[in-house]
Amino acid sequence: MFVRNCWYVVAWAHEVQGDMLLERTVLGESLLIYRSAGETPVVLDNRCPHRHAPLSMGRREGDLLRCMYHGLAFDSSGQCVEVPGQERIPPMLRARSYPAVQKDAWIWVWMGDPARADESLIPDTYSLNHPGWRYKPGGYLRYEVDYLLICDNLLDFSHLSYVHERTLGGTSGIAESRPIVERMDRGVRITRDVRNTVPAPFHRQLGEFNGPVDRRFHYEFYVPGILLMLSHVKPSDTPDDDMRGALRMHSCQALTPETESSTHYFFMAAHDYKLDDESVTESIYRSVCEAFEEDKKIITAQQRLIERSNPAPLQPIPADGALGQFRFIVKQMADKEQRR
Amino acid sequence: MFVRNCWYVVAWAHEVQGDMLLERTVLGESLLIYRSAGETPVVLDNRCPHRHAPLSMGRREGDLLRCMYHGLAFDSSGQCVEVPGQERIPPMLRARSYPAVQKDAWIWVWMGDPARADESLIPDTYSLNHPGWRYKPGGYLRYEVDYLLICDNLLDFSHLSYVHERTLGGTSGIAESRPIVERMDRGVRITRDVRNTVPAPFHRQLGEFNGPVDRRFHYEFYVPGILLMLSHVKPSDTPDDDMRGALRMHSCQALTPETESSTHYFFMAAHDYKLDDESVTESIYRSVCEAFEEDKKIITAQQRLIERSNPAPLQPIPADGALGQFRFIVKQMADKEQRR
Amino acid sequence: MFVRNCWYVVAWAHEVQGDMLLERTVLGESLLIYRSAGETPVVLDNRCPHRHAPLSMGRREGDLLRCMYHGLAFDSSGQCVEVPGQERIPPMLRARSYPAVQKDAWIWVWMGDPARADESLIPDTYSLNHPGWRYKPGGYLRYEVDYLLICDNLLDFSHLSYVHERTLGGTSGIAESRPIVERMDRGVRITRDVRNTVPAPFHRQLGEFNGPVDRRFHYEFYVPGILLMLSHVKPSDTPDDDMRGALRMHSCQALTPETESSTHYFFMAAHDYKLDDESVTESIYRSVCEAFEEDKKIITAQQRLIERSNPAPLQPIPADGALGQFRFIVKQMADKEQRR
Repeated sequence: MFVRNCWYVVAWAHEVQGDMLLERTVLGESLLIYRSAGETPVVLDNRCPHRHAPLSMGRREGDLLRCMYHGLAFDSSGQCVEVPGQERIPPMLRARSYPAVQKDAWIWVWMGDPARADESLIPDTYSLNHPGWRYKPGGYLRYEVDYLLICDNLLDFSHLSYVHERTLGGTSGIAESRPIVERMDRGVRITRDVRNTVPAPFHRQLGEFNGPVDRRFHYEFYVPGILLMLSHVKPSDTPDDDMRGALRMHSCQALTPETESSTHYFFMAAHDYKLDDESVTESIYRSVCEAFEEDKKIITAQQRLIERSNPAPLQPIPADGALGQFRFIVKQMADKEQRR
Repeated sequence: MFVRNCWYVVAWAHEVQGDMLLERTVLGESLLIYRSAGETPVVLDNRCPHRHAPLSMGRREGDLLRCMYHGLAFDSSGQCVEVPGQERIPPMLRARSYPAVQKDAWIWVWMGDPARADESLIPDTYSLNHPGWRYKPGGYLRYEVDYLLICDNLLDFSHLSYVHERTLGGTSGIAESRPIVERMDRGVRITRDVRNTVPAPFHRQLGEFNGPVDRRFHYEFYVPGILLMLSHVKPSDTPDDDMRGALRMHSCQALTPETESSTHYFFMAAHDYKLDDESVTESIYRSVCEAFEEDKKIITAQQRLIERSNPAPLQPIPADGALGQFRFIVKQMADKEQRR
Repeated sequence: MFVRNCWYVVAWAHEVQGDMLLERTVLGESLLIYRSAGETPVVLDNRCPHRHAPLSMGRREGDLLRCMYHGLAFDSSGQCVEVPGQERIPPMLRARSYPAVQKDAWIWVWMGDPARADESLIPDTYSLNHPGWRYKPGGYLRYEVDYLLICDNLLDFSHLSYVHERTLGGTSGIAESRPIVERMDRGVRITRDVRNTVPAPFHRQLGEFNGPVDRRFHYEFYVPGILLMLSHVKPSDTPDDDMRGALRMHSCQALTPETESSTHYFFMAAHDYKLDDESVTESIYRSVCEAFEEDKKIITAQQRLIERSNPAPLQPIPADGALGQFRFIVKQMADKEQRR
């Protein structure tokens, strides 16, 4: 179940450089991503309209893109502008073009009606490009899983206590706490406070805590699967708004369905303390990667079971509140698009 | 075509020890097999009823089983008894439980209506656990084949002359002999006597025969695919009931469909002579494994041809008598279950 | 979309020697190819009519073929002539036999109605067996592609300028030239002259050209996918019919669908100059293989895109003339066979 009228992260900005032609599949459609002369990202249907050879196997010639099967050349709007040995170019010879925007360190593509592509709908990924925050770029995983199962995972942090017991979790207290869930227009906002608990194993690598700590997870989660989270851990015996001695992170994560059963996962986690200590940046990156592999393992196993099972009902529990709301929003938007 | 109301071998008893959680798929259903505190084998649907994460990736906590996705805990009846951060446990939160029995060295599971699970239907695999018989345990092969093709194979030993020419066969005399086939309630009984023939290549490793031999294969074959066979080879010039100088074996073999097109094959072959000679036990095991690989090669090739062919009629020959009867019994039982 | 009533190349003659049993799949059907005692090629359905074990895993016994599952033996007409332990052989116990002919160095099989198998329909592959021509035999590629996409490729040489820029092409002049296309009964004839152009990179390895050259490609392309081409490159300043100083080649190529989405490709390219120089033969073979790998790469990518895309219209251009005509002929023949 895909929503088309929304922005999807299609690549890290640094993945598309110079004359490179990058192929990436989104919503089952093979896309070609490159930069036009003015550096603007261009996203085209990867199929040459002539006989569906991949344009990503083509060649840049200045600002033209030449299909290297029969030599047709296209401009950055997707319009064919040259057919070898032929004078007239039929106007139908054009590859579909998708609105694309580079913002902060990510390139976004709009998969729906171009007339509705509104840049203000791109969520505010400020920590991707901010002097007060530091992170290691390039975080990426490919899942062979329906993106909604990963959304489910990100919408219920009770799993931190179990899936990430030895990495991001460390206590059943996370699962036992109750999050506050607020409905937004295109997503949900979640706040989960865990008081008088223990730091997670990965916190112990980063800070020194001699007593109980408070942990807070505060995030928005937008259609189609964009997570923007501010989180921290701090000693329980200091005031709530005193971030001295706290470890604070801002994380941007984006799920982009590749197909019905595979997903691109772009992510980063930034810190706003010890900005000059690269070992902190590296340590956070490694902890996140390790934990995300834990997610991938169980979600992939879950997907395999669902795929091959006779359909069987899922039994909801209260912890499913946020993911239930989010799936409802996605379904509403997708249904509305279908009706049009 | 599966029969549900029957016992299937799901594992060798020694495969499930201590706190181990074993996943095995039977009739397309992912099962979790473990031992409850009292050592009794437990078989549950492997899907956590909450969101279908695999319980086999969970953890034993005493006699509880905890799903390591969101922390739900289950007792050995499959009932959820704990949801982190939640007081009330909905009774619907339960994983399906399957009747399971350990008998001799195998664990059996009943895939149908639990009310009809009758232990007396488990065939008598006495040699799996008998002081007068010795065998090497653990015999197992996985086939990417419909189990009925392996049933066919086991129901027509004429193939010994060709598939096992250099292992269990050794003469076209086996194919040329006519078996006696008797219909039973849930299977067939087959007796094939081959008189004045030559010992098989594998017999030459085990005994000394200076003249012609008689070979006898006597077995029951039960739904869903259980073979219990007493076989021997002996000099032709001694009385039929004189087993001195004979090599006698009892073999238990069990086919358990994994999916429509893959099968678990559990097997052993026991001897009742030279009980203390481990080299005999080992030699028999190796010969059987070698021969079963010969079967696997041709049956797998047969399956691949059938899968991709346009449906084409099979041409029956008299040698198909037993397998025809057996397939008829399976079809009758499956149809009867469908009608219910 | 397959045409059945035509000859397909099933093997190089040298692939089937002595008592060998060769399996090859054509039009989705597993075929057994061998030579009967008289050396005549025999093509049978590879399925034993009894229970569909592959006859290719059987054994030659003189002029008999024995299935090594249950021992049935067949003559070279496919008729079963022996069932172990059984007197009467039902006439239905026969494997389908396909008309087969060895001509020059290839073995051809007729996949349709045997009564219509007319050897005169086999195209004239003279250079496969002619003292005036030399080539390296055995050219073969397997494509995971619908054979019609490879037909498309061979019917439009404009791709030489792009796909084979650094091998067989060397100039955009090939794409810019206009071929003459003539309709034939079971195919098309194409002549493409490229005047005052440059030799291709692979020509530079074979000859010396100090000025502009003329290139000519002249070929017939027959259903189901047989290309017979005479081509040359020569200095532009000599008369058209003066082949001194020219490099001339004759190429036979045959596409045989393995399945709907995979294809056998048999090919050779012969030269009629420097007949005794093996390095020329070898050099041509290597250049052709290198170029055909270039085709395979882009056509396979094209197939993958087509397979997974929503159906989308192809936009024709004038260069598609020949392939449009050829696809029309194939469709007409296939439709006509369907109606019968």
